[in-house]
Amino acid sequence: MTTEHITSLICTLCASRFPLHDSLLTCPTCGDSGILDVEYDMDRIGREMTAEALSRRNRDHWRYIELLPVSAEYAPPLTVGGTPIYPAPTLARTVGLETLLLKDDGQNPTASFKDRASSVGVAVARAQNQPTIACSSTGNAASSLAGMAASVGMRSVIFVPQRAPEPKLAQLAIFGATVLRVQSTYEDCFQLSMDACRHYGWYNRNCAINPHLVEGKKTAGLEIGESLGRSMPDWVAVSVGDGCTIAGIWKGLREMYQLGFADRLPRILGVQAEQAAPIAHAFRTDTPLEPCEANTLADSIAVGVPRNGHKALKALREAHGAVATVTDEEILLALKRTASLAGVFVEPAAAATVAGIERARNEGTIARGESVLAVLTGNGLKDTRSALESARMTAAGSSPILDVSPDLDAVQTLLGDPS
Amino acid sequence: MTTEHITSLICTLCASRFPLHDSLLTCPTCGDSGILDVEYDMDRIGREMTAEALSRRNRDHWRYIELLPVSAEYAPPLTVGGTPIYPAPTLARTVGLETLLLKDDGQNPTASFKDRASSVGVAVARAQNQPTIACSSTGNAASSLAGMAASVGMRSVIFVPQRAPEPKLAQLAIFGATVLRVQSTYEDCFQLSMDACRHYGWYNRNCAINPHLVEGKKTAGLEIGESLGRSMPDWVAVSVGDGCTIAGIWKGLREMYQLGFADRLPRILGVQAEQAAPIAHAFRTDTPLEPCEANTLADSIAVGVPRNGHKALKALREAHGAVATVTDEEILLALKRTASLAGVFVEPAAAATVAGIERARNEGTIARGESVLAVLTGNGLKDTRSALESARMTAAGSSPILDVSPDLDAVQTLLGDPS
Repeated sequence: MTTEHITSLICTLCASRFPLHDSLLTCPTCGDSGILDVEYDMDRIGREMTAEALSRRNRDHWRYIELLPVSAEYAPPLTVGGTPIYPAPTLARTVGLETLLLKDDGQNPTASFKDRASSVGVAVARAQNQPTIACSSTGNAASSLAGMAASVGMRSVIFVPQRAPEPKLAQLAIFGATVLRVQSTYEDCFQLSMDACRHYGWYNRNCAINPHLVEGKKTAGLEIGESLGRSMPDWVAVSVGDGCTIAGIWKGLREMYQLGFADRLPRILGVQAEQAAPIAHAFRTDTPLEPCEANTLADSIAVGVPRNGHKALKALREAHGAVATVTDEEILLALKRTASLAGVFVEPAAAATVAGIERARNEGTIARGESVLAVLTGNGLKDTRSALESARMTAAGSSPILDVSPDLDAVQTLLGDPS
Repeated sequence: MTTEHITSLICTLCASRFPLHDSLLTCPTCGDSGILDVEYDMDRIGREMTAEALSRRNRDHWRYIELLPVSAEYAPPLTVGGTPIYPAPTLARTVGLETLLLKDDGQNPTASFKDRASSVGVAVARAQNQPTIACSSTGNAASSLAGMAASVGMRSVIFVPQRAPEPKLAQLAIFGATVLRVQSTYEDCFQLSMDACRHYGWYNRNCAINPHLVEGKKTAGLEIGESLGRSMPDWVAVSVGDGCTIAGIWKGLREMYQLGFADRLPRILGVQAEQAAPIAHAFRTDTPLEPCEANTLADSIAVGVPRNGHKALKALREAHGAVATVTDEEILLALKRTASLAGVFVEPAAAATVAGIERARNEGTIARGESVLAVLTGNGLKDTRSALESARMTAAGSSPILDVSPDLDAVQTLLGDPS
């Protein structure tokens, strides 16, 4: 299995087509903003990637090898994808729905959705014999890249913004990455990583320009299409930072529809933090993307200058989609609810998705009877400080941890008599 | 599928047999130290749980329903077990082996091995219509119980010792458990939870006395037996705190051998922290268990009075096993190596297992040509402080995170010219 199922790379701005080539990352005409998209020979894939063929394959995301831009022999050993989808009836009722499904991508090897992209990025770098891979990231792409690179003995260089929380830095350091913490915003951090990749000749894993990464992200959509294709939810919801994740999920859903695994396509709900919502704003007002300040505790979606904004807007439009914006307080409330009502502990950016679903219900975007699947993109252990804040906030003044001396009377003082 | 495959409960001290009964937890004759063990009708199970039957089941640990003490209808929705096994050739060479496999149980829903036990505990409590489930724990059993209980809307009451690190407390609080932090040792914490369970009539999830929990833990052994039964490694290694985990894994391995899924049994390596090693000491000197102080940064195995010590010693003896003890410094070094050489980020108690394998190699217990599987029982995100300490220690004086201003010259000053 090689890359023979790929027909071309197409520029998402000018629609020019180019043959697949190792050194081609962005459109030669449009420059860095001309992000390329991989196109496949879907007729051929339809004959080869049948339901019967899939039933004999492993559950990880390399099962969709015909729809990935690299040979499986380069795949890192860590098991990516195949994440569970849980029904969450109690949480559903709380946010005003009858049916809510949670796809827990925090179950990936480094505990985030980004493992999907990083595993493909590292595989492509290996196929091209690249000794070093680099990226800038708000945190999850970074720790994910560091882990995937470590698993195959590849050097990684990671540019993180000042804002990245300690657990994510701990992951980077422990995986042995070269970690450069840039004393500035995510935007400066991104630009510096681009310059350094050019200067040092490192393989550039930035989703914002590398056409292969979104192919990894789309596997979440492929999985939803394969698992739920005969009972597709009305909506698939995911939070939006750079824009690449929502575009990837949509691409995967479309491909599974095209191949007949899904009977219909869902609509897409994109959720942004109120203080970091350039894509939501552009979509609502049908105006060009405007850079903005990014200010939210949901560090994974704290992006004021989205590099994949066009792809995200295109996905939202194609999907007859909608957007919702949420406050940090709503995010923290959703974090507590998702954990305490469904047993799934997520990071703020994933809680934002649940908060956004509730917003969309309250605003009438989503009807009570419509079914929704939330893609939860990161594990709550990634940001335990926010979790404690969420627990304190929802404990309404009292502490969520009760200190007690080691005797039963002390317990009884706190909890009262047996009922 | 109900509990009809169970023949009896047998006391691990006096070997008396009792019929399965809801209210029976420990041996009526021996009291609290008479831990009971579930016995199955293996002939019948051999006819029903065939390789062919398993091939049609889901990958989670409820696939072994005939060998579990509760009907699958009570299983919580979260996907437990089916964790990946990775070959780790570079890490193998570093610890002096040719073949080292890593079973990453940090991939469970709440990021630890303990989800195996908690899912079974919650299922049994549901089957018995219990509204509240309680336990004491060094941390992982607690967060796991809180998550599993939350997923089915059951109340949980958790007793944790002072030592539990913040990420684990964050998990408890966010899952909505009633968290009692006992201002004392694990031993006092355990006793208080026992007293409170009796007083309040809560269902007691303590592995130390509840015979059903070890049945959940054994599923790791069942999975190893099913996956590797035709090429069983020479050793299975795991770190030891209370003793229940190693006993559970051994029970699972034995059952898969008995059912013909495995051609042979591995030997077992039990690893303890040097300053919390009562089981290792008793095994080495063939003397009764002596309580001791527990002093190690590996909080999950910081147990001075192991409640399942007898079961652990029995497993070690039956398995022609061995023990190794490791220092905190060796644990931190193994933590860094496991992450940077295999891409698997683990908590200190799991790193102890890798450190113990190296110790056992150096002491000649394990030969270079023997193959070893390490069960890694918890995700590194559970204790990021130790991870940062490990990264700092192994960075030899320099910081593992490099602060840099946002320009290429600053990067070049730190990293030098392109090669």
